[in-house]
Amino acid sequence: MTDLPHCDTLALVRQGHALHITLNRPQARNAMSLAMVAELSAVFSRIEADDTLRAVVLRGADGHFCAGGDIKDMAGARSLPAGEGDQDPFYRLNRAFGHMIQQANESSKVVIAVLEGAVMGGGFGLACISDVAIGGPTVTFALPETSLGVIPAQIAPFVVERIGLTQTRRLALLGSKVKGNEALQLGLLHQLCGDGDELDTAIATALDRVRHCAPQATANTKRLLHRVGKEPMGALLDDAAAQFAAAVRGPEGAEGTMAFVQKRPPAWADIDTADNH
Amino acid sequence: MTDLPHCDTLALVRQGHALHITLNRPQARNAMSLAMVAELSAVFSRIEADDTLRAVVLRGADGHFCAGGDIKDMAGARSLPAGEGDQDPFYRLNRAFGHMIQQANESSKVVIAVLEGAVMGGGFGLACISDVAIGGPTVTFALPETSLGVIPAQIAPFVVERIGLTQTRRLALLGSKVKGNEALQLGLLHQLCGDGDELDTAIATALDRVRHCAPQATANTKRLLHRVGKEPMGALLDDAAAQFAAAVRGPEGAEGTMAFVQKRPPAWADIDTADNH
Amino acid sequence: MTDLPHCDTLALVRQGHALHITLNRPQARNAMSLAMVAELSAVFSRIEADDTLRAVVLRGADGHFCAGGDIKDMAGARSLPAGEGDQDPFYRLNRAFGHMIQQANESSKVVIAVLEGAVMGGGFGLACISDVAIGGPTVTFALPETSLGVIPAQIAPFVVERIGLTQTRRLALLGSKVKGNEALQLGLLHQLCGDGDELDTAIATALDRVRHCAPQATANTKRLLHRVGKEPMGALLDDAAAQFAAAVRGPEGAEGTMAFVQKRPPAWADIDTADNH
Repeated sequence: MTDLPHCDTLALVRQGHALHITLNRPQARNAMSLAMVAELSAVFSRIEADDTLRAVVLRGADGHFCAGGDIKDMAGARSLPAGEGDQDPFYRLNRAFGHMIQQANESSKVVIAVLEGAVMGGGFGLACISDVAIGGPTVTFALPETSLGVIPAQIAPFVVERIGLTQTRRLALLGSKVKGNEALQLGLLHQLCGDGDELDTAIATALDRVRHCAPQATANTKRLLHRVGKEPMGALLDDAAAQFAAAVRGPEGAEGTMAFVQKRPPAWADIDTADNH
Repeated sequence: MTDLPHCDTLALVRQGHALHITLNRPQARNAMSLAMVAELSAVFSRIEADDTLRAVVLRGADGHFCAGGDIKDMAGARSLPAGEGDQDPFYRLNRAFGHMIQQANESSKVVIAVLEGAVMGGGFGLACISDVAIGGPTVTFALPETSLGVIPAQIAPFVVERIGLTQTRRLALLGSKVKGNEALQLGLLHQLCGDGDELDTAIATALDRVRHCAPQATANTKRLLHRVGKEPMGALLDDAAAQFAAAVRGPEGAEGTMAFVQKRPPAWADIDTADNH
Repeated sequence: MTDLPHCDTLALVRQGHALHITLNRPQARNAMSLAMVAELSAVFSRIEADDTLRAVVLRGADGHFCAGGDIKDMAGARSLPAGEGDQDPFYRLNRAFGHMIQQANESSKVVIAVLEGAVMGGGFGLACISDVAIGGPTVTFALPETSLGVIPAQIAPFVVERIGLTQTRRLALLGSKVKGNEALQLGLLHQLCGDGDELDTAIATALDRVRHCAPQATANTKRLLHRVGKEPMGALLDDAAAQFAAAVRGPEGAEGTMAFVQKRPPAWADIDTADNH
């Protein structure tokens, strides 16, 4: 179990095989500041090497997920001397956010997003890289960038990857708001809960599913899924077959087969899920 | 404000920031003739350079969007001497339609399709390149090509881009009809209206959303969305960050920030939307 | 009409323009054995050259579609000497299944899957390559691989192609079960039937649609659809226009046009659909 980095903008709670990350700037509806981007990036880096962690639960404090980019950071960038190209402070601000999203997208852990209240701009982008998206009754998605004279540069590409070009065109070009049931239909949410209790149950159920799945097999499956459509299918399936053979012959395959035959839970399901923060 | 080309098969009405294009061959349920293809192409070319226009509303006269390709043009092509390859009159007829669809797809303007009655064959293809698709109660989509012994050559690829391979396979191979609610679920429609009044309100609302979004940011966002999945994500996000920096430092970014701080609408929202045809 | 290969694990019934293939190992919920993979592959190869067949109806015996890979084959592979790379018996077992799925995916015939009961693991993968997916009231999809310590290597890529990365991540990483209505919403099913009679009607309707569509145009359209997103759109549309011209000038285009003008069904719709097994 590795130490987690100290964070000012995030609250971190480790609970069994899950790390609960709460975006914790409620005075700004958890707007994504430069500091928050850096801390999220540091946390995702650190946990990558921690085999005791298998899931990340990402949510916002006080009823909002994340209202977008932080206005003060934008003002700060404007006050800096303008550099050229990737030396421009606005470039660095924007791209840093995108790098963090890419990193979270490629995390080997199962990322569960709990989406309530404002899921806007950068928050919308972050929501789109989750493996499991659970929404609360107040959830409202929007991409307001073009109405502010800018573009959803590091965000819209992840929205396209999640819900397709068709729906993204409308949402990005009109800045329309999307609420619970429509979000469910678009695939922004996998599950919509009516209240906080339902939300807690849905999170617990997802974490329990993660507990029953072999950690290494889960990480390898996620890596495989990300490659589909980016490589020719034949070569991908060749490599996947090699991974399958290695998995069957490896410790998880042996334990999984044995547990199945012996009608008992596999060893990886037998973990302490009590609080230990 | 540029002059619009003279059109025989289209009715054009400019209204504030929107150009209303009506496919206007009601005697043939607005079937797509060679002349209509040429006129649509000329109109989309002309408006590309007109900064006063920010949206296109595309619909059909007298309750149908477009019933497909025009039978008379097909007969005309058959009467011409058969050339080889791209000199074949059927090749030229078919490819000209596809070129127009590609051009409309890449228009920097927000394209709003109003879909009623028959949306068949070429009409189905044209509907699939819209940014916003609003349907009326009579809307019926179908790809009847294979039942006529031909293939939806310039159409099916745009259907795949819009609703995915899965659903397109069924629609293109069976020629099945799709009505309002199913079209909504498939993403062929973004919104389904119960009658003409609802339709008018939905169009007005979409145009109002376009009015609140910065024109250059909207055009740049649309161009960015079209690149997703066709370029490696990292390089795309690098370029998007450069565009973000340019947008923030440009006139729209400055005005958008100022308007937000001053709690007033931005200058680009302050346009005359009264009729001026 | 070609002879069909002898099969032990499949029941084959030819009926008019359709071949009905039933996965027939009900004692194992039609689990996909090495023998079944080989027989499916042989059947798909054989029918490719048979112009009298235009559709394949794929279903499972006794209320289940297919419960996944066969446990005995897995045990058999384990007892073989371990080879390196593609000489590993587990590699060969796994990849053979993937090759069969690729082959079925690229079949020029219209593939109609009838999905009931367990549609798990390899069965899930096979379901995903259908052109038309009709579900019964008991249908349950799941990818249980990671809970057994292995990965859905030859399966998950086809799930991504069918329902997108977003939904596949959740299903593959959590091993969650998906039932009828959710499967319909995800696009795993095109149609959900309430009982066996409805199912029979839905199959008959799909086969009737296939009967009305020109066989060569159908095969060419399916081939075209598979290329979308894998080639640049412009070049694809150029080639599609050439195919269109060839189709119009070919016998199906001539017959289709003539039948349309003469208001009669085209010759390809006039086939004997009575039993002839």
